Amino acid sequence: MRKNWLACDLKRVSDHRGTLAIGELAHQLPFVARRFFFATGVPVGVMRGGHAHKTIEQFAVCVHGRVTLILDDGIERTQLHLHPSGPGVFIPAMVWDEWRDFSNDAVLLVLASKEFDESDYVRDYQQFIELVRG
Amino acid sequence: MRKNWLACDLKRVSDHRGTLAIGELAHQLPFVARRFFFATGVPVGVMRGGHAHKTIEQFAVCVHGRVTLILDDGIERTQLHLHPSGPGVFIPAMVWDEWRDFSNDAVLLVLASKEFDESDYVRDYQQFIELVRG
Repeated sequence: MRKNWLACDLKRVSDHRGTLAIGELAHQLPFVARRFFFATGVPVGVMRGGHAHKTIEQFAVCVHGRVTLILDDGIERTQLHLHPSGPGVFIPAMVWDEWRDFSNDAVLLVLASKEFDESDYVRDYQQFIELVRG
Repeated sequence: MRKNWLACDLKRVSDHRGTLAIGELAHQLPFVARRFFFATGVPVGVMRGGHAHKTIEQFAVCVHGRVTLILDDGIERTQLHLHPSGPGVFIPAMVWDEWRDFSNDAVLLVLASKEFDESDYVRDYQQFIELVRG
């Protein structure tokens, strides 16, 4: 498993007003965010993701509920269970991701290093394997 | 009310896999995000915020539950009720913000144009009024 897949702790500040979870993008992560999205209302049993990016880097954090992330670099596959009190995950380019087991109240936030570009997606797993193995 | 306080619609894509709400930062908003935070577990009756920034710009979106945002530019005060199906809000520099009426399941996401800098905060309302009224 490559270290840069691994969970990335967020700074947390808790007091009588609740909890802030904080990420400094240019420090903790090697990009500034030019795009963000959040997924809600994902039905039980549905998978999201199922692609890799040629160049776009992402940071994902589950901000409500629970979700499972599967990451695959073509050699190794790992599974992470994400929730709001836990870490986020940096997803480098050319890593296949699949999001599964959304709880019915899950909110998944993703920050991305670039604007949307369909040509940056690798949506076929066999093609992904050929690209990473090379 | 200045237009640039106003709600900023996010693109939404809904299908059988749920809903994505998407923001393109360099296009829709005049900054890329160098910092993000999300607030959770805010007790009923508690206010968060209560400050302005001298230079930092922010974009706020309620990604779960409900929360009320009060914005004040020293001349006019407005109130916005935010929830995940609605717009986000661009908060320019030198606008006082207060967050109130968090539902007990609320998650408030904020993207910021710069890293944390205590000297960028104006935490005293009277000082804020003096600064904006010049």
